[in-house]
Amino acid sequence: MQTVELLDKREQVMRLFTANGNSDSSEIHEYLFTLARKICEASHVSSDIKLKQLVGKFDGSKLPEEPVEINTYLDYLAENVAAHSTHTSSPRFIGHMTSALPFFVQPLSQFITALNQNTVKTETAKACTPLERQTLAFMHRLVYDLPDEFYRRHTQAADSTLGIMVSGGTIGNITALWCARNVSLSSRNGFPGVEAAGLTAALKDYGYEGAVVIGSSLMHYSLEKTADLLGIGTCGLVRVATDKHNRMDVDALRRTVAECRARRLLIIAIIGIAGTTDVGSIDPLAEIAKLAQEEGIHFHVDAAWGGPLLFSRRYKHLLSGIEQADSVTIDGHKQLYLPLGVGILVFRNPFLAQAIQKQARYIVRATSIDLGKRALEGSRPANALLLHAALHLVGPQGYEFLIDEGIRKTRYFAGLLRTDPAFELLGEPEINILNYRYVPAPLRERVSTGNLSEDDLNFLDQFNEALQKTQRQAGRTFVSRTRVETPRYGAQRPLVALRAVLANPMTTKADLHAVLADQVDIARQIGFAVGQGKSAGR
Amino acid sequence: MQTVELLDKREQVMRLFTANGNSDSSEIHEYLFTLARKICEASHVSSDIKLKQLVGKFDGSKLPEEPVEINTYLDYLAENVAAHSTHTSSPRFIGHMTSALPFFVQPLSQFITALNQNTVKTETAKACTPLERQTLAFMHRLVYDLPDEFYRRHTQAADSTLGIMVSGGTIGNITALWCARNVSLSSRNGFPGVEAAGLTAALKDYGYEGAVVIGSSLMHYSLEKTADLLGIGTCGLVRVATDKHNRMDVDALRRTVAECRARRLLIIAIIGIAGTTDVGSIDPLAEIAKLAQEEGIHFHVDAAWGGPLLFSRRYKHLLSGIEQADSVTIDGHKQLYLPLGVGILVFRNPFLAQAIQKQARYIVRATSIDLGKRALEGSRPANALLLHAALHLVGPQGYEFLIDEGIRKTRYFAGLLRTDPAFELLGEPEINILNYRYVPAPLRERVSTGNLSEDDLNFLDQFNEALQKTQRQAGRTFVSRTRVETPRYGAQRPLVALRAVLANPMTTKADLHAVLADQVDIARQIGFAVGQGKSAGR
Repeated sequence: MQTVELLDKREQVMRLFTANGNSDSSEIHEYLFTLARKICEASHVSSDIKLKQLVGKFDGSKLPEEPVEINTYLDYLAENVAAHSTHTSSPRFIGHMTSALPFFVQPLSQFITALNQNTVKTETAKACTPLERQTLAFMHRLVYDLPDEFYRRHTQAADSTLGIMVSGGTIGNITALWCARNVSLSSRNGFPGVEAAGLTAALKDYGYEGAVVIGSSLMHYSLEKTADLLGIGTCGLVRVATDKHNRMDVDALRRTVAECRARRLLIIAIIGIAGTTDVGSIDPLAEIAKLAQEEGIHFHVDAAWGGPLLFSRRYKHLLSGIEQADSVTIDGHKQLYLPLGVGILVFRNPFLAQAIQKQARYIVRATSIDLGKRALEGSRPANALLLHAALHLVGPQGYEFLIDEGIRKTRYFAGLLRTDPAFELLGEPEINILNYRYVPAPLRERVSTGNLSEDDLNFLDQFNEALQKTQRQAGRTFVSRTRVETPRYGAQRPLVALRAVLANPMTTKADLHAVLADQVDIARQIGFAVGQGKSAGR
Repeated sequence: MQTVELLDKREQVMRLFTANGNSDSSEIHEYLFTLARKICEASHVSSDIKLKQLVGKFDGSKLPEEPVEINTYLDYLAENVAAHSTHTSSPRFIGHMTSALPFFVQPLSQFITALNQNTVKTETAKACTPLERQTLAFMHRLVYDLPDEFYRRHTQAADSTLGIMVSGGTIGNITALWCARNVSLSSRNGFPGVEAAGLTAALKDYGYEGAVVIGSSLMHYSLEKTADLLGIGTCGLVRVATDKHNRMDVDALRRTVAECRARRLLIIAIIGIAGTTDVGSIDPLAEIAKLAQEEGIHFHVDAAWGGPLLFSRRYKHLLSGIEQADSVTIDGHKQLYLPLGVGILVFRNPFLAQAIQKQARYIVRATSIDLGKRALEGSRPANALLLHAALHLVGPQGYEFLIDEGIRKTRYFAGLLRTDPAFELLGEPEINILNYRYVPAPLRERVSTGNLSEDDLNFLDQFNEALQKTQRQAGRTFVSRTRVETPRYGAQRPLVALRAVLANPMTTKADLHAVLADQVDIARQIGFAVGQGKSAGR
């Protein structure tokens, strides 16, 4: 009896491991392929199920004792997961940094899973190790464009690290500042350096009272994680004011640097942002680079969003100075139109990452080209293949088109908002992120004359929050929501803003009109409730 | 003229974004699907191309100016990448922690890419947010098995964090110790805590002279990264000796704890290992847990490899005590048979991760159930879906079978090695990782009598290194290589070992015999060269 059970169990499991290529497998393939296509082609941006009700579908915590039949599970997926997933590739989902993706990333993802290469070491990623190094050289060239000789020397050399593939921009930023911290407090005169001795001993040996990272007030929250993790504390993340275009004020930066020096604080790095998450603004990278060089400070550019502007002959000047950065983060899953999980960090100095090198006895030995030797992460998938493919199939020209298109559409959208009294454009967009708000009729006059009371401002905040929540719940169109400082209302009074990110090449002018029409409808519908001080949505 | 060019470029790119579902797309699908199947069914473990020659295929660093035709690129992929990738799913590739995978992960990976949910926030992952929380509850139950009431309260609650999905075990370990550090130096009496004030100020406020993490000498190298990152330095990673079974010596641990206390060092955490990477040994978790509790120290278990033993009624007792850990890391891409990129961290205390909480203005607001609020990473794919599916389709029973099978085969393999004088088993395997070495004929007598000189030991080290390199290069079978300490030769003389990891359900007894036969052949072939002091391979 027990043997039969055991055999059944064995057969059941072995079928899952051997079914590849048989009819079972093709069927599931077809099912999921069709389901995915249906989702990608759907016209809504999400179902209108209430979050509370949806959560109720996932509140169980006990696993089924018996394995579930695969068809049963697929139906479950379709009904509960697919039906209520966010349609992030919808042309009317213009609120976050997701977009439609080129279709080849779908079969390629499956291929990467089938190959199951672990890029931590060459022994489990024979071809994908040099391929990843080559991909990083492509990205390094995009940013730094150094002579051929440089790339011949470093692209595949065991002692060089042109860059690191990471799971996302957050890990990119953390890794960059980890390198910067370790280099600025490295071993000397018998002191073993911060890597070995820790931060307290290192600051003491170097005669510092503390350590900081400096950036603008619009730094991504990953920098807070970084400051916390690296032991300098979030108080060590110094935020310099921005100018009226949301760019770092370099005079303020210069004063901050001088103050830190006077207080004997180590400045681990200065951060420049190429495309702030809130508003898309780009810091004056060349000026910051100059200052950083004069002061001998590591200059890191967070170009998670804006990096791919380098492909655009028309807009690459906005990133001028990035080629002087010591390290640059770019996200593949943002404006390189790749799936989630593809981040890139590149270093100007190919030996910088030696400051974080770690080894193990069974892998990543000192003389190998193993990628895991200098990286925050350990085992990793061969996602570099997605980037490698896209750089060939979309190509520099394709990316140029995508960047130019997004900015063109953003300008069109800004034009719509500027001429429609129902909306107020909150700041001029620099690239393809744009903030605005809805203005109910009774306030339009006062908005146009700049004559809003604090009560009016509060009402507008409440109204726009309710508007965004209702719009999200209805699921026909989507923009996100943030708080922004504007020149008009001052840094002391950030405003609730509707935030549009225009990166999806499938978004048409008609889609932009549809988003605004949807908001006008919703505004009409919720007008009374907010007037009563109530807020819609959850 | 320029317009025509522009139109061409537009058409070319737009075709990539709209081809999904048309014949182009199906063709590529079919091509990659067939290619992947061919790889998965290949009998060798890698091509025998020399690494230097392979690297030469990837030394270019200039992108093509014109986009590449997709069929050209697919042929390139087949010829250069697929042909020379490591066949990690081969039943004779038994040297690393990769295996054949259940077939459904392939179409599911593609589905996840198609859905493109960003699980950092509910707005871009409506259903996948509660689904990920549920998946973490399943894993939490597996480890802690708390009352139903606990899961009803915490699974979907905004203030609770039963666990965090991470890109891999390294991020899991870092995140766990980040939480532990922040909790042990939290805000009090006007002091803002380590998160805000940094490590130096925190240690001073709490009156510590420094901070350490304690684990056995077999800790994974991710803990070195952790100690470095968190600012305590790798010197702050205290390595306690292991006993003859490669398990942490708890008496030595007790002495180390007392010494650290005497030196006024904060002990951030004690690490227990459930399945060391080198030899698969499991620390005495219950004893460590008891000590950690008595001393009020965070107890973290690195169960990246061994965690799924909890599914086995026969072997789960080996992990006894894990249910008292404060945090546990498990890798999905190891013994849960999922693709790379699926790591799991669970916490006993669902409020622990509040110690690392960060927010932003546009997402992850305080009251939301957004997953990005308490995590090291930011934007992330919905890989929880892979784990959710596997927990249903393979199920607890299927995992039990896989675990039991691996251990059964390891014992069989150990038996082969024990009875074959050409091999020496280096330590008894505790689970499914096993170390051994080849012994050339002239040394067999001295090995069996334990009468080896230092010269003999050096020769055996050299010989086995050459053997493993030659075997890897030939590409018919594969085991990895490490250095292990053995009771027989003492902790002072680690030996070069061949390392087998037996987790692939497709590996048969015949495969194990084939691996050994291949090694005997290779040993015969390289015997002379090593005798001359030369080493094969790179």
